Amino acid sequence: MYNPLLLPEVREMLRSDDDTGLTEFCDALHPGVVAEVIEDLDNEEIWRVLSHSDVDRQVQIFSFLSLPRQEDLVETTGRERVSALLQEMAADDRVDLLERLDPEQVEVLLPMIAQAERADIRKLLSCPDDSAGSIMTTEYASLPEDITVEEALQRLRKVAPNRETIYYVYVLDEDRHLRGIVSLRQLILAKPGALIADIMDRDVISVNVNDDQEDVANALGRYDFLAIPVVDDHNRLVGIVTHDDVIEVLQEEATEDAHRAGAVEPLEDSYLSTPLLTVTWKRGIWLVFLFGAAFLMAFFLDEYKEDSSTYEWMVIFIPLVIATGGNAGSQSAALVIRTLALGEVDAKNYMLLVVREVAMASILAGSLAALGFLPAMLLVNVQVAIVVSTTIAIIVVLGTMIGALLPIMFKKLGVDPAFISNPLVAALVDLTGVVVYYEFALFWFRQ
Amino acid sequence: MYNPLLLPEVREMLRSDDDTGLTEFCDALHPGVVAEVIEDLDNEEIWRVLSHSDVDRQVQIFSFLSLPRQEDLVETTGRERVSALLQEMAADDRVDLLERLDPEQVEVLLPMIAQAERADIRKLLSCPDDSAGSIMTTEYASLPEDITVEEALQRLRKVAPNRETIYYVYVLDEDRHLRGIVSLRQLILAKPGALIADIMDRDVISVNVNDDQEDVANALGRYDFLAIPVVDDHNRLVGIVTHDDVIEVLQEEATEDAHRAGAVEPLEDSYLSTPLLTVTWKRGIWLVFLFGAAFLMAFFLDEYKEDSSTYEWMVIFIPLVIATGGNAGSQSAALVIRTLALGEVDAKNYMLLVVREVAMASILAGSLAALGFLPAMLLVNVQVAIVVSTTIAIIVVLGTMIGALLPIMFKKLGVDPAFISNPLVAALVDLTGVVVYYEFALFWFRQ
Repeated sequence: MYNPLLLPEVREMLRSDDDTGLTEFCDALHPGVVAEVIEDLDNEEIWRVLSHSDVDRQVQIFSFLSLPRQEDLVETTGRERVSALLQEMAADDRVDLLERLDPEQVEVLLPMIAQAERADIRKLLSCPDDSAGSIMTTEYASLPEDITVEEALQRLRKVAPNRETIYYVYVLDEDRHLRGIVSLRQLILAKPGALIADIMDRDVISVNVNDDQEDVANALGRYDFLAIPVVDDHNRLVGIVTHDDVIEVLQEEATEDAHRAGAVEPLEDSYLSTPLLTVTWKRGIWLVFLFGAAFLMAFFLDEYKEDSSTYEWMVIFIPLVIATGGNAGSQSAALVIRTLALGEVDAKNYMLLVVREVAMASILAGSLAALGFLPAMLLVNVQVAIVVSTTIAIIVVLGTMIGALLPIMFKKLGVDPAFISNPLVAALVDLTGVVVYYEFALFWFRQ
Repeated sequence: MYNPLLLPEVREMLRSDDDTGLTEFCDALHPGVVAEVIEDLDNEEIWRVLSHSDVDRQVQIFSFLSLPRQEDLVETTGRERVSALLQEMAADDRVDLLERLDPEQVEVLLPMIAQAERADIRKLLSCPDDSAGSIMTTEYASLPEDITVEEALQRLRKVAPNRETIYYVYVLDEDRHLRGIVSLRQLILAKPGALIADIMDRDVISVNVNDDQEDVANALGRYDFLAIPVVDDHNRLVGIVTHDDVIEVLQEEATEDAHRAGAVEPLEDSYLSTPLLTVTWKRGIWLVFLFGAAFLMAFFLDEYKEDSSTYEWMVIFIPLVIATGGNAGSQSAALVIRTLALGEVDAKNYMLLVVREVAMASILAGSLAALGFLPAMLLVNVQVAIVVSTTIAIIVVLGTMIGALLPIMFKKLGVDPAFISNPLVAALVDLTGVVVYYEFALFWFRQ
């Protein structure tokens, strides 16, 4: 996005100690752009650039750096600088960073941070991974319901600098129970003397602190919210999740699912910032597992070696038969997994999914069987064409069932359905496919 | 999300003509929740429920219904009602709906809509699919730079009801050139007498009206914006894309990519609201194509029939050899396609991607070859183990190259790299795999 000439310019400013230039670079551009440019510098250079702006700006720029880079920077500088940054960082960004550091390192840093912030950090750090609590921020704006719009605006002006957003304001009672919500748009449109209780929306949609982050993202997306309130089991407000966090979650989850679909264990960071050996390992474990499954097939085919010699044509169609089943299965898995990820079905609709898949499997099985008949006949003979076509029909149905049912089963068991990758579906269908093919063919020809 | 008891309650209110109840149902709940509940009613019932609230509220609820449902509703009621709705709908929602209708129907409806809105509709309808223009709204708030904060707030109050957001305000000159941006937060924190020119940010990050919607989504996500301005080639503001549209785009694109990965042509609507035969067709075209590829393999194996009889063991390892290559290829495709989708690499980094893939392929090829040696030796003999292991190594490298290079090539050609599905990679690798396997084995044993 940014001008590629900026990086050499910054390098030149660093070389010539151009303090004015560096200060302007930090302050005039969007902090996200500054971060993108300096991401390519080394740690010491980044710290030098950052030292040219005030701590607020430093924190903004720092927070836009990639997490592996933030971790790197923290580990290569003094504790004073780090604790000063942490003190000012947004609550959710701060916890994302602390979660990556050594627990020992965190224990050294925490005492250097103010008491109130420390309690907040401990609370957020204790939320389970991938829960609403793990992505929320505690820096929301709240008001009581018995004040006027004018008073509300005055209070908001005071707290605005330390709040993630002031566009949604949450109305709480003394025990922090969520009573309503009012937007800044409503506030500036309302009469200054009106009471908050009279203009707020009382039907507040919220999520529980333990809800899965994907459900939180889907809820915020469904209702076009800027932020969604997070409550505990007693409907007390504990935080908010904002639109930018949701966008991050959606990108993360889509990446995770895409990697899973290709049988790669999800990476924690982006592909390019993950060390090569880590990626190789996350591919290797799946490749070896699938390799094992494919070797089972070799043992199986070894058993049938004599039959393969008796019926020479059988070999010819092995790849066709198993690939077609695997492909149909991959399609079902892709459709079902994505539908589950979007939260479009709940328990009562699972049957509907299965019924649809069975119906489609029947049509596809029939069509492919018909399509395969002629070439198989030309290649060998009618008898063989009957066997091959029938096997294809059976395997397409089996493949579809494996691809559709496994993700649903996993969902019911509380495991991420995306665990079922396309290669895994293919491997399972290949195995069953070969057995069905050989057994059916031998049954037919021995008769 | 919503209380499942609401639907029977609404049905009961409809049966007993409970006007008060229905009015309260429409007005007290979030319009998104109302839409979710009534989505399960029939068209006539939905219109009856909607008639219990004023047109503003009707439009809000209507806009939260799914697009297929909106289309359905429009086609089953009178033009007056439809044009009244269209007149009040948000510019981007309106165009999404009109794009689904018959062009003839649109030509009948347009004259019933006010002149200004009509021009707006024609402009948005003319934007290419999946461009920034196709998802933007023209209802943004703008100000000149030479007024005071107090004047600005007064103007914003006037236009607020008709603007998608007033939290970001765009500062324009007389020719609508984008000069700066100021947030409502900045406005309410600034001194009432300050000039907009003095408080606005001048480094505005914008996108071009023809940019791809995925790039727009990535840009907004990268900088945590609420909205991103869309400009024409002369830097004149033509619209904005808001966070909720971006979330929709990200979900759509992730769904599209997930379906593609499983070799399903992307569906326009959600899986469950797409007719069964449409889904079957979108699977069928790919299955048939891949079926054709697999049949090529059958013809190929037919050529080698005699060799297969001479070397009985060859057959045993066919599935193993091709599956392993296909799996490695699927992994590379998943990693590369996702990295491209997130905009994490640009042209200058493509080589880096390729180098990483080659390095990983070498490690994985070596490991799998070593792993396969012993079982192949036990199953047949050392000679065969050498051939099988070597072939596996070659095919893993080949598979990785096909999986990594094809998406990059497609990207360079301006085709969506996600076109390369896992089954397609598998099919291509299978074909090359079998050829390599047979040719190498025959070369080895004939010597």
